[in-house]
Amino acid sequence: MSFSAVELIIKKRERQELTSKEINWLVENYTSGVVADEQMSALAMAILLNGMDRREIKDLTMAMIASGERLDFSGLTAPTSDKHSTGGVGDKITLPLAPLVASYGVAVPQLSGRGLGHTGGTLDKLESIPGWQATLSNTELYSQLAEIGAVICAAGTGLAPADRKLYSLRDVTGTVEAIPLIASSIMSKKIAEGTSSLVLDVKVGSGAFMKTLDTAIELAQTLVQLGKDAGVNTSALLTDMSTPLGLKIGNALEVEESVEVLQGGGPADVVELTVELAKEMLKLAGLGDVDPSENLKNGKAFDKWRQMITAQGGDPDAELPKARHSHEVLATESGFITRLDALDVGVASWRLGAGRERKEDAVQFGAGVQLHAQLGDRVKKGEPLMTLFTDTEEKFARALGLAEQAVSISEQSSGARKLILHRIS
Amino acid sequence: MSFSAVELIIKKRERQELTSKEINWLVENYTSGVVADEQMSALAMAILLNGMDRREIKDLTMAMIASGERLDFSGLTAPTSDKHSTGGVGDKITLPLAPLVASYGVAVPQLSGRGLGHTGGTLDKLESIPGWQATLSNTELYSQLAEIGAVICAAGTGLAPADRKLYSLRDVTGTVEAIPLIASSIMSKKIAEGTSSLVLDVKVGSGAFMKTLDTAIELAQTLVQLGKDAGVNTSALLTDMSTPLGLKIGNALEVEESVEVLQGGGPADVVELTVELAKEMLKLAGLGDVDPSENLKNGKAFDKWRQMITAQGGDPDAELPKARHSHEVLATESGFITRLDALDVGVASWRLGAGRERKEDAVQFGAGVQLHAQLGDRVKKGEPLMTLFTDTEEKFARALGLAEQAVSISEQSSGARKLILHRIS
Repeated sequence: MSFSAVELIIKKRERQELTSKEINWLVENYTSGVVADEQMSALAMAILLNGMDRREIKDLTMAMIASGERLDFSGLTAPTSDKHSTGGVGDKITLPLAPLVASYGVAVPQLSGRGLGHTGGTLDKLESIPGWQATLSNTELYSQLAEIGAVICAAGTGLAPADRKLYSLRDVTGTVEAIPLIASSIMSKKIAEGTSSLVLDVKVGSGAFMKTLDTAIELAQTLVQLGKDAGVNTSALLTDMSTPLGLKIGNALEVEESVEVLQGGGPADVVELTVELAKEMLKLAGLGDVDPSENLKNGKAFDKWRQMITAQGGDPDAELPKARHSHEVLATESGFITRLDALDVGVASWRLGAGRERKEDAVQFGAGVQLHAQLGDRVKKGEPLMTLFTDTEEKFARALGLAEQAVSISEQSSGARKLILHRIS
Repeated sequence: MSFSAVELIIKKRERQELTSKEINWLVENYTSGVVADEQMSALAMAILLNGMDRREIKDLTMAMIASGERLDFSGLTAPTSDKHSTGGVGDKITLPLAPLVASYGVAVPQLSGRGLGHTGGTLDKLESIPGWQATLSNTELYSQLAEIGAVICAAGTGLAPADRKLYSLRDVTGTVEAIPLIASSIMSKKIAEGTSSLVLDVKVGSGAFMKTLDTAIELAQTLVQLGKDAGVNTSALLTDMSTPLGLKIGNALEVEESVEVLQGGGPADVVELTVELAKEMLKLAGLGDVDPSENLKNGKAFDKWRQMITAQGGDPDAELPKARHSHEVLATESGFITRLDALDVGVASWRLGAGRERKEDAVQFGAGVQLHAQLGDRVKKGEPLMTLFTDTEEKFARALGLAEQAVSISEQSSGARKLILHRIS
């Protein structure tokens, strides 16, 4: 069956539904190059502005999956469970979470990406560990999963190549923020990966893609439905991203804080989210009675972390890279921190060198921001609020204004942050 | 001043206005290749769905003009007047109109295009005259205008190159039907061409871009305003395109019918529209008292036609190309023709070979449709309704169904067609 790309673009432009056959044709022919980038970007804009219904989103996701290979973990004795976060500032949760869940005998295949823009990338963070390798073959992935139970590695190019191509296009055409496209992008990779269960951490707030609870709930519902339709046991937590997670933002800095959590310490919010997501993953894998905070305290999760890092060539005892330069931002008055904006801190960290401007850029492992106080904490005038780190001293100038504007201090406390906002299953 | 293309796309996507500087930057950098085709097509879709205000459309038009050269007819002793039609089925009006208006001493620089889709192209029609050349240098154009007063030729690549690039892109990305883009495309070329007055023939109905009077009025008002803002004395007629103009549709067929009109004959609707548009052009050029039907009857317009064709290498006495095959469509019942659909007839003619599928295709000069009756005429069962012409016999199969479905016959007459629907000045 053959269609005209222009006619299908016009159909969506005129708010009509695309049929399953039309969507399959589009994705197949976009992957093979028959449908051109400029046609796909016009279609992406029409989808962003006019939407897609549930059936169309499912068809799009399935067509993306069909564009590549699928992994198969059904030969493993352990159940598999995966987590996906829509990304935020200081969101290092994957790092302690994968070994923690694996320490209970559930296999965690965590295929991850790199950072683009102000949100960090899991692979960039782990690459700050000397020797650690992000790329595994499918065979290596499978045997590490069978032997150790936890893998965090780069998603191979074989999974959903149509999504890979479309994602790069969306990035340069202002069409990233379309729920049907975000949902099919996330879920095509997760379904193709072959996990039997999946927990989604959908972030809400200034530092997230979804700025409001309503749009985040819409996205989460779409994702959960897509997972269930494809036979993946899926649930979602909606979690706050109006202020950074934890005290450390940046690549090596976030590895440090993850290790603190795996050793039974770390900031309360990072521990809480790690434990809540672990509970959800274990429940979907059939271990509903477990209290995951135990293996954080007794060292079992940390042992699993060491095995996981070592298996991929990393030295868990090596010293992490440190930035060459640091600069302290001091409190300009005394009082309670009533605002500590995730986006401002995230962009500051990005500008310090923790993130990349273009895909081909390198990140600075030691760059980033260390907070000395969190939202709701009391501070005194002249005390350090945060320390900025970079290898390139000139970068302070572009980050400093943002770091300063990120914080509001008031005499009146504005109350505590609610971390888990909503649960969808 | 430098902007980010992605940020500007997102601005329009979020229904915000683009500033003059932003629009200039976009057009300049799209022309030079810094802004990519996929970015421009996403922006075009956002403009189509979210619109642009009057100031933005004017800025866009001016930026398109600034991307290329401008012609200057101010050295001519005669006033200049031009016409632009938004395109329809059987719309050969430019052919008799240019020599008719020129026969009163007004210079008519008619820079024209080729057909794409079901609407015919003026240059394709004239190229059916043996020897006739569409391409003139600026110097040749200027001297033919000074000496003969009428030129119909290809618009040079120097005028509004940004529009040329954007138009090809819109054609393959489903973004043709955006009023801000249609308006800036038409008017950038007409303003750059340097005419001092301009009459727009905005078509309404199934065979036109604008299917409803409301959208056609919106487009016409936008065009007239743009012309006036740029110092071009501009007015518009809104004319019916629900049924074809005249009896002949196709390249050589339309030249034949134009010659009939120039010799004082031809179908009443073609004569009426030619005379009305000529009146409007002459009025804008300062000759409000003239009755243009005189020079159709006394042969002066036809003399001017012969001079114009000869000046561009054409032989006005040569026999026109005829199609190899013909096929008659007969009336299936007796009664009045209550519908004779422009789009159906236009697409049938296109499929017979009168138009092209892709830009690089050649047209068949003899292909097309000859109607034997028009809307409102009485026909008898078994009499010929129309004759289809093509050089490629297989093409009848794809055109016949459309030709048949174009016509409805009823016992009751549905009244006469109103040709001139509205006037905007």
